[in-house]
Amino acid sequence: MSATAHTPAERPVSVLGLGMMGSALAAALLKAGHPTTVWNRTAAKTGPLVAQGALPADTAAAAVTAAPLVIVCLTTNDDVHKLLAPLAGELRGRTLVNVTNGTPGQARELAGWARDHGVAYVDGGIMAIPQMIATPGAYILYSGDEQAYAEHRETLAALAGTRWVGTDAGLAALWDLSLLTGMYGMVMGVAQAFAMTGRAGVAPKEFAPLLAEWITAMVHGIVPGTAEALESGQHLTDVSSLAVNQAAFPNLLAAFAEQGVSDELFAGLQPLLDRAVAEGYAADGLSRLSELLKTQ
Amino acid sequence: MSATAHTPAERPVSVLGLGMMGSALAAALLKAGHPTTVWNRTAAKTGPLVAQGALPADTAAAAVTAAPLVIVCLTTNDDVHKLLAPLAGELRGRTLVNVTNGTPGQARELAGWARDHGVAYVDGGIMAIPQMIATPGAYILYSGDEQAYAEHRETLAALAGTRWVGTDAGLAALWDLSLLTGMYGMVMGVAQAFAMTGRAGVAPKEFAPLLAEWITAMVHGIVPGTAEALESGQHLTDVSSLAVNQAAFPNLLAAFAEQGVSDELFAGLQPLLDRAVAEGYAADGLSRLSELLKTQ
Ligand SMILES: NC(=O)c1ccc[n+]([C@@H]2O[C@H](COP(=O)([O-])OP(=O)(O)OC[C@H]3O[C@@H](n4cnc5c(N)ncnc54)[C@H](OP(=O)(O)O)[C@@H]3O)[C@@H](O)[C@H]2O)c1
Ligand SMILES: NC(=O)c1ccc[n+]([C@@H]2O[C@H](COP(=O)([O-])OP(=O)(O)OC[C@H]3O[C@@H](n4cnc5c(N)ncnc54)[C@H](OP(=O)(O)O)[C@@H]3O)[C@@H](O)[C@H]2O)c1
Repeated sequence: MSATAHTPAERPVSVLGLGMMGSALAAALLKAGHPTTVWNRTAAKTGPLVAQGALPADTAAAAVTAAPLVIVCLTTNDDVHKLLAPLAGELRGRTLVNVTNGTPGQARELAGWARDHGVAYVDGGIMAIPQMIATPGAYILYSGDEQAYAEHRETLAALAGTRWVGTDAGLAALWDLSLLTGMYGMVMGVAQAFAMTGRAGVAPKEFAPLLAEWITAMVHGIVPGTAEALESGQHLTDVSSLAVNQAAFPNLLAAFAEQGVSDELFAGLQPLLDRAVAEGYAADGLSRLSELLKTQ
Repeated sequence: MSATAHTPAERPVSVLGLGMMGSALAAALLKAGHPTTVWNRTAAKTGPLVAQGALPADTAAAAVTAAPLVIVCLTTNDDVHKLLAPLAGELRGRTLVNVTNGTPGQARELAGWARDHGVAYVDGGIMAIPQMIATPGAYILYSGDEQAYAEHRETLAALAGTRWVGTDAGLAALWDLSLLTGMYGMVMGVAQAFAMTGRAGVAPKEFAPLLAEWITAMVHGIVPGTAEALESGQHLTDVSSLAVNQAAFPNLLAAFAEQGVSDELFAGLQPLLDRAVAEGYAADGLSRLSELLKTQ
């Protein structure tokens, strides 16, 4: 049963949950040469993977006992808890890698449960869609039991790039959700920008290259700049102060109204800028907003 | 007085308004060899430019009559209107390039006023901070009187890259504000992401490179993808449907709460996702949001 009896590409792995993502993970393991046992609540989904060489397990318990490394990928952590709670005995002594999306708090809860039952718990945050699994650029954030992670890192590397973020099991979910948060902000800006230009009859394909180039250029200035300000606690700027942004923002809101575009995605920014200035941060840059969001 | 009597680098230009931006514009014109007349409400600000070779004008009227091309850069378009309304006679037959930030509607109003008084009006949207003027990467969006623009394009190129966006005078402001909108969305995401990770003690400089890389990668997929969906009217996706995003978003909101981070910047997104799904767009991608923002 010890994983060290196998060369990296021969290490057995079990995958529980064969939705779009779980199926992509199992396929990547098979392709890398790992004996892969698969289980899914709806048994029919094992078919395509068995055709690729996977070993189907009749029960989740059988899948768990088939390998020292058990990867679980269900819809929610609630589903994970329900499925695994009765299998604590079978999981004891094994490594559980949970790549189901959830909150840091949920990951910490599962890690506590695992610790109580002698299960090595690693939480994963997949920064990819299923189609990107095992392709360059995709990576998975991991946190939790560092020794178990180190032991299985090579196997996990068959799925996507690996990025360790810390022993607090909640960190992978935290980094994952924080990156998604950054993306959702960008998505709100992009949706609004296309709505604005669309209203004036500007062709989306004419506007798109400038928009992509502009946001990219701003990201490369603002993200490291914000990190530096947060590290040093020094938010003063001579480039784009909160006062200047506060003064400029009504132009944007007026333009939304002129163009007949809803301001619902941006309704929170003006009050935050106003509060920042009222609290004495008029000369600080936008990096100050991060600190203000923490105080509520 | 005709501009054609001068070679490009000798064409006289007047700049009204010598704040941070106006001063940078005048300095760039001087550096490119243009005889440059400058005027500012607070006369003291002409000093550094006169030292660089500018000709100071005692009155705005004198500045206007000193050149066929008049660039105005004040705080708001209201200031522009107040300053220039009494100078319609002096402006007649000249080209007025207004690079003051404002809304498309304000630009259209000024263009109407200019047309009524025989002034060729070009509106400009500066996609740069003063420090970036006359450096690579900076550009100015122009719209309005295309003939006047063509006549002075070479001179304007001394300020920054030039990008013509159309004869509707409001378009430069529209493109400008739409790009800023995209940036503000990204800024909201970045502020929230750093607040989240900061709460958990993640070093900003450790998180920053992944955040910048992630948003950049997403921009390069999402912006052209949205443009394509908007052009074709085909928003169906097999990657990240509105239903999937609607289901995933509560995780984010829960994580904000867990980490003690305000959700004020993201409060508008969940209701919009809910509305999108309720209106029958569950299988569409995020590009659909642009259309929904227009309907309100
Ligand atoms: N798809 C992506 O782009 C993506 C990207 C990053 C992360 N993720 C995360 O990966 C996880 C899975 O996503 P997916 O796209 O694979 O979803 P999916 O296609 O909907 O698959 C969901 C899987 O969970 C199983 N499941 C749900 N509830 C269960 C329960 N109570 N007991 C046992 N099995 C249960 C389903 O089994 P049945 O087949 O029996 O229903 C199915 O195998 C999610 O947490 C998602 O957030 C997905
Ligand atoms: N700075 C940037 O990063 C940036 C970037 C893009 C666009 N812009 C736009 O460029 C414009 C100017 O910005 P700035 O940074 O140069 O601002 P600024 O440094 O505050 O300068 C404002 C200028 O406007 C003049 N002014 C204001 N009200 C006036 C009035 N009623 N009559 C005559 N002159 C008046 C001021 O004259 P006094 O010196 O007498 O006060 C000063 O010259 C704004 O529309 C801004 O949005 C700026």
